[in-house]
Amino acid sequence: MKKTFLTLAVLSTVSAVQADEGMWMPQQLPQVAKQLKAAGLKLDPKALTNLTEFPMGAIVSLGGCSASFVSPEGLVATNHHCVYNSVAYNSKPGRDYLADGFLAKTLGDEIPAAPGSRVFVTKEVRNVTQQVIDKATAALEGKKRVDAIEKNVKAIVAACEKEEGHRCNVYPYYGGLEYYLIKQMEIRDVRLVYAPPAGVGKFGGDTDNWMWPRHTGDFGFYRAYVSKDGKAADFSKDNVPYVPKHHLKLAKDGLKEGDFVMVLGYPGRTNRHRLPSEVDFTFSWDYPNFVKSSGERLAIIGEQTKTDDAARLKYAGMVAGINNYYKNRQGMLDSYANSDFLARKTKEHAELKAWVNSNPARAKEYAADLATVEKLIAERQEKAKRDVNVDGIFPRLLGTARTLYRLANERTKPDAERKAGFQERDLPRFAAGVKSVEGTYAENVDKALVMHSLKKYAAQPASEHYADVDAALGIRAGMSDAELSAAVDKLYAGSKLGNTEARTAWLKAKPEDFKNSDDSFIKAAVAMYEGSLKREAEAEEEAGKMQQAYANYMKAKIAFMTSKGLPVYPDANSTLRVTFGKVAGRDHGTADGLAWAPFTTVNGVVAKATGQGEFNAPKAQLDAIKAKDFGNFVDPKLKTVPLAYLATLDITGGNSGSAALNAKGELIGLAFDGTLDSIISDWDFNAANTRSIQVDLRYMLWQMKHVDKADRLLKEMGAQ
Amino acid sequence: MKKTFLTLAVLSTVSAVQADEGMWMPQQLPQVAKQLKAAGLKLDPKALTNLTEFPMGAIVSLGGCSASFVSPEGLVATNHHCVYNSVAYNSKPGRDYLADGFLAKTLGDEIPAAPGSRVFVTKEVRNVTQQVIDKATAALEGKKRVDAIEKNVKAIVAACEKEEGHRCNVYPYYGGLEYYLIKQMEIRDVRLVYAPPAGVGKFGGDTDNWMWPRHTGDFGFYRAYVSKDGKAADFSKDNVPYVPKHHLKLAKDGLKEGDFVMVLGYPGRTNRHRLPSEVDFTFSWDYPNFVKSSGERLAIIGEQTKTDDAARLKYAGMVAGINNYYKNRQGMLDSYANSDFLARKTKEHAELKAWVNSNPARAKEYAADLATVEKLIAERQEKAKRDVNVDGIFPRLLGTARTLYRLANERTKPDAERKAGFQERDLPRFAAGVKSVEGTYAENVDKALVMHSLKKYAAQPASEHYADVDAALGIRAGMSDAELSAAVDKLYAGSKLGNTEARTAWLKAKPEDFKNSDDSFIKAAVAMYEGSLKREAEAEEEAGKMQQAYANYMKAKIAFMTSKGLPVYPDANSTLRVTFGKVAGRDHGTADGLAWAPFTTVNGVVAKATGQGEFNAPKAQLDAIKAKDFGNFVDPKLKTVPLAYLATLDITGGNSGSAALNAKGELIGLAFDGTLDSIISDWDFNAANTRSIQVDLRYMLWQMKHVDKADRLLKEMGAQ
Repeated sequence: MKKTFLTLAVLSTVSAVQADEGMWMPQQLPQVAKQLKAAGLKLDPKALTNLTEFPMGAIVSLGGCSASFVSPEGLVATNHHCVYNSVAYNSKPGRDYLADGFLAKTLGDEIPAAPGSRVFVTKEVRNVTQQVIDKATAALEGKKRVDAIEKNVKAIVAACEKEEGHRCNVYPYYGGLEYYLIKQMEIRDVRLVYAPPAGVGKFGGDTDNWMWPRHTGDFGFYRAYVSKDGKAADFSKDNVPYVPKHHLKLAKDGLKEGDFVMVLGYPGRTNRHRLPSEVDFTFSWDYPNFVKSSGERLAIIGEQTKTDDAARLKYAGMVAGINNYYKNRQGMLDSYANSDFLARKTKEHAELKAWVNSNPARAKEYAADLATVEKLIAERQEKAKRDVNVDGIFPRLLGTARTLYRLANERTKPDAERKAGFQERDLPRFAAGVKSVEGTYAENVDKALVMHSLKKYAAQPASEHYADVDAALGIRAGMSDAELSAAVDKLYAGSKLGNTEARTAWLKAKPEDFKNSDDSFIKAAVAMYEGSLKREAEAEEEAGKMQQAYANYMKAKIAFMTSKGLPVYPDANSTLRVTFGKVAGRDHGTADGLAWAPFTTVNGVVAKATGQGEFNAPKAQLDAIKAKDFGNFVDPKLKTVPLAYLATLDITGGNSGSAALNAKGELIGLAFDGTLDSIISDWDFNAANTRSIQVDLRYMLWQMKHVDKADRLLKEMGAQ
Repeated sequence: MKKTFLTLAVLSTVSAVQADEGMWMPQQLPQVAKQLKAAGLKLDPKALTNLTEFPMGAIVSLGGCSASFVSPEGLVATNHHCVYNSVAYNSKPGRDYLADGFLAKTLGDEIPAAPGSRVFVTKEVRNVTQQVIDKATAALEGKKRVDAIEKNVKAIVAACEKEEGHRCNVYPYYGGLEYYLIKQMEIRDVRLVYAPPAGVGKFGGDTDNWMWPRHTGDFGFYRAYVSKDGKAADFSKDNVPYVPKHHLKLAKDGLKEGDFVMVLGYPGRTNRHRLPSEVDFTFSWDYPNFVKSSGERLAIIGEQTKTDDAARLKYAGMVAGINNYYKNRQGMLDSYANSDFLARKTKEHAELKAWVNSNPARAKEYAADLATVEKLIAERQEKAKRDVNVDGIFPRLLGTARTLYRLANERTKPDAERKAGFQERDLPRFAAGVKSVEGTYAENVDKALVMHSLKKYAAQPASEHYADVDAALGIRAGMSDAELSAAVDKLYAGSKLGNTEARTAWLKAKPEDFKNSDDSFIKAAVAMYEGSLKREAEAEEEAGKMQQAYANYMKAKIAFMTSKGLPVYPDANSTLRVTFGKVAGRDHGTADGLAWAPFTTVNGVVAKATGQGEFNAPKAQLDAIKAKDFGNFVDPKLKTVPLAYLATLDITGGNSGSAALNAKGELIGLAFDGTLDSIISDWDFNAANTRSIQVDLRYMLWQMKHVDKADRLLKEMGAQ
């Protein structure tokens, strides 16, 4: 029997539906037109390259989350977890919109989202590589190169932002090999319209996060408001709903297994083009360290807020964020442990190097930079290990003070000469950041987190300490916990930055005001300023070298791939991307002998509901399910309301809230998650395991119509 | 949106793999030759009709379980739960073959199976309808008809059994419309060869019974022994392994999803041709009552044996049996509650009646009998409700006494005139039954079970009591628990039948000996004898009427189905059947959003193993799995050893141990279970849900080779 079984290993041709790799830039889609057609797209792929036409014109960014216009009156659909902070911000004891949900009965009842909330409407994308790395810049190295790039970028951005109410950014692609200017209308008056109760929008909580089967109604709605003349404007009662040029129409047909689906959104970051040494460092040191540290931070926040509802609400957003990454990183580590990823990556990189060295011209062009990249990576990793505890030792308000002092200093220069991020265009963001502290900060929690890092930092040898930092905080290597505690208490006690008015006043202060202040955090910020600049310059020197070498590494890699006939999409970088595939379960689940069906249904909510904690489905919803009050949202095959579905799509963090469209470009739901055993795809695309999770449009509409009675919105969206 | 969703309900064409209905008599297979070929069978369907040729010649019955010869030396493969009683029978405190498993190192180490164990090798199947219902019989009614049928059957059986060592039976098909004579060689020297530890063979226990995913290694081996001249014989050290004419060869290729599979075995009983009134009674009264009563009986046995290891071992078989049916019936009730079965059945029956009545000739032939069947069923159900508690009130040894006395009376008649079941041919079975009491009986348990029923019976009004029974047991309606207990104690105390020697002696006693005995159970048996005969005659009067009418109902139904071009296979009746289909998971599991993969693997054992109770996988097995000591039994797709698999087969109780064969007729595993949400298929075939569960041959061989070191058997089976 031996031989035959071994033979089968070769002969076996049974293959399951596999996920579809590729976060394509819209302009790349004609390159994969054949695949798009084969997958079932009914639109012309070329139509998807025009960012101001349908359907791309309806896709927006919230900065960190993706979203889309779904009505002619600026209604924006996104995930519940993307509006979560706005719900939390507007909640307080006795008015718990998180638990109860929020539904504005009229336009006038729509409430301002959390400070800093934005809707970014992309207007233009342009390749600016030749302007960013112009001939002069190309000849520079190190910090000079960084400075030149920054200067060029600022010039491009400044020219672009001459149109008021717009925000322009230059994004590096392929590790700095290419640069694109992205011009977006920046809508600043964003209001919360509707969020179902957390028992729907966060049903399953952290237990179900990254899991399948999934029953989270992860959807919520904002509305974009502008001035009466249609310009971006700060909040005003006189503002009116923004009228987008395009908005998504709701699908008329229910989705089913095998259907074409594409997701349009802003994936944050992937690392598929990384070198083997980066993979090794990340999975052997960085992520394990992150997981450990996150667990500790969660425990501290839990302990500090356990009897304080107000503080718990303030830190709800941070806790959700930490939990999310905690599970994400651990999931990647588990997948990595069972994979041959590093060996494969090492082999691929060796092949690239062999290909480079097999031809004298290629060797001349790339070999030195390939070596440089590896050397710089090694140095960077060494530094990261040494500085592992530093980030955590700064009280949040000290961070605010440092930012404010830097801002004051930068503002003494002409705008064009200021450091990127501290220009006039950035001021509203600073104002929002300074204000948002009040809803997300509690001194006891902050202090406990700082003490936790400080103890570790103090335990490191003096050679790994920064003298100016130590002096500014009044600490030193080897200090006892009691001494550290006393130093920290003194720092916190000596500052008035906890007061919003006091904090806000510093936004317009001059450097002299800072130098003359006796506020403890301001004083510490001033004391650390020169050292910080010096460290920044060192980092930029390294970054300049890295940019140059890494871009050339990517150039070599693209040339190598192209020589093999393989298309190359850039790693995700928070810019608009398209991924397409189909609705599909999985022939293997996570438990032996079980597979994944492509859909979950409301029946699963009843099965999971415990009446408390993460599984506290609202009674009104449970009643509707039990009464089979499903209206016309019943799936013909499932015989009930579909809730979430799996698709073979290539998404990652940042895609949260992305519109999922069918072959005709109609809305069929919102992407909100991946699954734990496939998130290593951020590094190493795993075709067999990777599935994106979308909330089904039919569930959204059913919840809105049959449970939450959001008829106003349904009508606006054309659902009735 | 409303309209479109409704339209979809009609248009949806997505269909999952569905189970293949049909427990075909081998001789019917040419009728479905086209389907067999389409499913992938490589053998000629005609070859499957010859019961003495390959592969049918290798298929045997154990009486209640199915099995097959898997070596030229009479090695018989079947389920662990089919050899369970033999393992239990040979176990005792300090020698726990159940927990530790049993493996005979040599032929000489093979031990006698439990008394009464048999291997039945089918030699002939012949339609004898014309002899059973000959012209004279066809003209009779009621008891006279039953007596005539019995006489004819006995004559056929007697003629057939003239060949020594054979057992012949006449089975009714299609509710008595047809009769077949089945002649089987009855091998009486059956020995236990190998059973893995219960931690393998019963892994998952009652928790996993009827469930998927499944990780039960439900396999074990007997060997058939015969005298040196090849005849069936009682156990003797001089006996030699039986040399079957055919035995199954092991599959050389591993199985995979979608592969053809057929199961050959002896399904016990289905009820697919039942009338609506029978369905209603069963699911509204009979099964609910059974479930309640089983729960009570399990609790009593548990209570009585909790501190008594010996008694626990004795009742292990009964507990397993009750648990099995308990879960089975409850599963059917759950499915029934969510189904439209009764409405559909009622509609089908109405259609049949309409078809009958739409034609005068048909109405004349069938209408009266259709009405008679419904009337008789109503009467039978009435009686069943009244007598619900009677079966349980007889102590087990009183049952033995009643059987022995009946036997003594029957033996005063010439053999051919004796009641069927009490002829010379039946004596060995009586002897075995009388002996087997010792390994499966404990007085305290038996008495507690009797008291439980007796209390209920005593609470029924006197009009529902049988006077002779009451007198014989010394009880009456309305007795207090204390009075009942005293009566029962007196009965048990007055008998010596608990002693095997004493009990065995009664096998040869004459009626006068019984009448003169002062053994309490013997006296009660004698006292109830006349009443029993009278009740038997009444039942036979009813049975005769029923047989006549029911057979004609089936004749009408077959004619109706044939008029619609539909083939009709008979309900299962413990005779050899073939079912075919393919290896397939399910697109819906039991939890929302999960589906069933077609295979489980040894990885799942590790995940489920708790180290105790029902999930106590042996350490040696766990070590082998963790060390990936898989040899050549790794599935190329699963990357590990497959354990069990699902197939779209139509099986039921009695199929346990059935050989599963691939398209070439090679062994690929053993069927051992169905799944809880599909067992209602015994009544109403559910194509979407029905899956049979087989243990994969590769798991059996891996366990034998890598864990239990059963090299002798592997060699004999041609596995090495």
